Amino acid sequence: MRSLSDEVGPRLAGSPGDSLAVAWAVRTMNAAGLVDVHTEPVTVPVWQRVSESASLVAPPVALTVTALGGSVSTPKGGVRAEVVRFTSLDALKNGPDLSGKVAFVDMSIDRAEDGHGYGDGVPVRINGAIEAARKGAIAIVIRSIGTDHSRLPHTGVMRYQDGVTKIPAAALSTDDADLLTRTLARDPHALLQLDLVTRELPAAPSANVVGDVPGTGPGIVLLGAHLDSWDLGRGAVDDGAGVGIVLAAARGVLGLPSRKRTVRVVFFAAEENSGAGSKAYAKAHDLELDRHVAALESDHGAGAAVGIRVLTASDKADAARALFSGISNVPVFADDAHGGADVSPLRARGVPILDVLQDASAYFDVHHTSGDVPEVADPAAMAHASCTVFQVAARLALSELELGRIDEAKRKEAW
Amino acid sequence: MRSLSDEVGPRLAGSPGDSLAVAWAVRTMNAAGLVDVHTEPVTVPVWQRVSESASLVAPPVALTVTALGGSVSTPKGGVRAEVVRFTSLDALKNGPDLSGKVAFVDMSIDRAEDGHGYGDGVPVRINGAIEAARKGAIAIVIRSIGTDHSRLPHTGVMRYQDGVTKIPAAALSTDDADLLTRTLARDPHALLQLDLVTRELPAAPSANVVGDVPGTGPGIVLLGAHLDSWDLGRGAVDDGAGVGIVLAAARGVLGLPSRKRTVRVVFFAAEENSGAGSKAYAKAHDLELDRHVAALESDHGAGAAVGIRVLTASDKADAARALFSGISNVPVFADDAHGGADVSPLRARGVPILDVLQDASAYFDVHHTSGDVPEVADPAAMAHASCTVFQVAARLALSELELGRIDEAKRKEAW
Repeated sequence: MRSLSDEVGPRLAGSPGDSLAVAWAVRTMNAAGLVDVHTEPVTVPVWQRVSESASLVAPPVALTVTALGGSVSTPKGGVRAEVVRFTSLDALKNGPDLSGKVAFVDMSIDRAEDGHGYGDGVPVRINGAIEAARKGAIAIVIRSIGTDHSRLPHTGVMRYQDGVTKIPAAALSTDDADLLTRTLARDPHALLQLDLVTRELPAAPSANVVGDVPGTGPGIVLLGAHLDSWDLGRGAVDDGAGVGIVLAAARGVLGLPSRKRTVRVVFFAAEENSGAGSKAYAKAHDLELDRHVAALESDHGAGAAVGIRVLTASDKADAARALFSGISNVPVFADDAHGGADVSPLRARGVPILDVLQDASAYFDVHHTSGDVPEVADPAAMAHASCTVFQVAARLALSELELGRIDEAKRKEAW
Repeated sequence: MRSLSDEVGPRLAGSPGDSLAVAWAVRTMNAAGLVDVHTEPVTVPVWQRVSESASLVAPPVALTVTALGGSVSTPKGGVRAEVVRFTSLDALKNGPDLSGKVAFVDMSIDRAEDGHGYGDGVPVRINGAIEAARKGAIAIVIRSIGTDHSRLPHTGVMRYQDGVTKIPAAALSTDDADLLTRTLARDPHALLQLDLVTRELPAAPSANVVGDVPGTGPGIVLLGAHLDSWDLGRGAVDDGAGVGIVLAAARGVLGLPSRKRTVRVVFFAAEENSGAGSKAYAKAHDLELDRHVAALESDHGAGAAVGIRVLTASDKADAARALFSGISNVPVFADDAHGGADVSPLRARGVPILDVLQDASAYFDVHHTSGDVPEVADPAAMAHASCTVFQVAARLALSELELGRIDEAKRKEAW
């Protein structure tokens, strides 16, 4: 994690850092002793942040703001308009006409071990611009989807919808959202100035990076993490942590004799703003997906392990629970693993999913901010998570237990 | 504090915010019921931050950096050079020739209730550029003088010396200083790129703002705080807190009958980068300094009160200790008050000094950073400090105890 964060740093899909990261991954997998280390081509969308600023107009007070990933620019001269505040996406949907105004969704999220506050908040970030545009708004600003109280805004992907006007979308830091809220309480007609310059460039080449810890049989246990990161920080906890966790786990397996199955490490491209890497992997490996015994994605930060979840064929759930019981003294839950963006194409094809749950209570303080640097990770907690992933992978690699295919009804993502 | 921070925001001497702050102070003192509220002219130096960036060169990794207050710009194209790291100012002074290189002083400071870590670190910020230039360095970067681990760099004033080359001076965030240290450990020849653009403009008019809670006799008890702030944050804890603390204390005194002495509130201009306001006050009130019974400066953040210090004529120390005993259940120390920048010209003239010490253990996390916003202050702690200042001022305003003049030997600032 530290090496990737320090020596490569930010690496949004298609950026110079992205190419550096691919080279880093090949080098690092080889150094770790993985075999058949190679890249697999992925075409990724390229979005660039050029500049961003926001301020209250009278008196002029600067606000810290960041464009959401995928946002269009503001028109020349920016947007200067009154602001209408909402405390949820539903309130925006059910609210008044916003013609000529800026929508402001100021929704706080819970701090929780299971990170559920982020799940609650993400629809605001992803769909806010669509809902605000439907009401006639000329831009949307949201309270950062984060558990911190700070001046670091959180970016993250947002979407537009065909047929709905594309309006600029940005996140204020939580402190600045509080200031805007207090300002509107004093003066409901206060004006906000928002200036975003972003660029959408032609799709560019990137790559998934794949390396194996070979086993004697045909089975493959996939351990994945994503190599790309948002541009603001250095991609330490998101997802340098996952990269470090699965690589350390794979090295652990490499030290074990009698491996019946291959443990395959995949560092996926472009998780943050397209999922292009995950789709490319599923397509490129279409013919061998049947040999994928299970897939685990590590993209939950650098916290300690707090549980294991498994989603298998329903008649294999008890056996899976037994296989993984006793690891790191954490509970095992069968039949409710979630996976994540990078393994969702595999889940859709029925490949069993393994989750190592981590304590996410501090994760969303720095997630997608410039504060995502190695200092925020606790090495002991991260080692605990990695050792848990190692044991999960090792038990499956040394065993011949088949987990079957996920029941059809459960192959779709929950979110 | 919140009103000044929200409605005026940053207010570096000579900036547009500075004028807004003076108007705010007049309005707010009048609303509080102070009498003879007026401004007194102060001419202040004007320094502007235009742009700033730093990065490692290969691979290019952005570092968060801020120009120190007063720094010159880098030459066109910036500075790109090898870096030599030191862990103290003494190590820099006693170190090797730095011709063509960038000096990096990476000194951590202690977190402490009495804030002594800041005092330890400040000479690095103030004198670092002089010492580095003497060794031939072309620029200096320092680890932020702060107790945080974050990506927010701390600015603050620095000095040049006649006859020594003026080199650009900047602070890295603590996280970025750690990154630079790790990078140099891997590659001692790593290059740093530094680009600072700053401007020194002609001196401009500003003002001290003065208002009284009148007493029946001639004596004056001065309660001071500074109105200006650094430009990065919103001047909440530095020194919106002091402004709020002394104003609330004065309002408290206003509610008391039988005031024998006037409690005068002074909001000083330009404390951060010249002390011009404090000098102007001492000069304008030269003829009435004898009537100043004591002066208290509140510029210690928003923490709870932890002690009272008094510096009086030595034969009045016991009486002063007795007068202030029992306030807020905090100890009273006689004959060792320090004062601060804004009361130092009064101290030099022998005016007794009162300090209300505050818990500064969290103060230097956000001090002089963009994180200096109202959210970081604990209202209960700040109320405790203010109530302590109120009681100190009230006891002195209701009493006829004379504190004499400070002994000649103790009139000079300790730092």
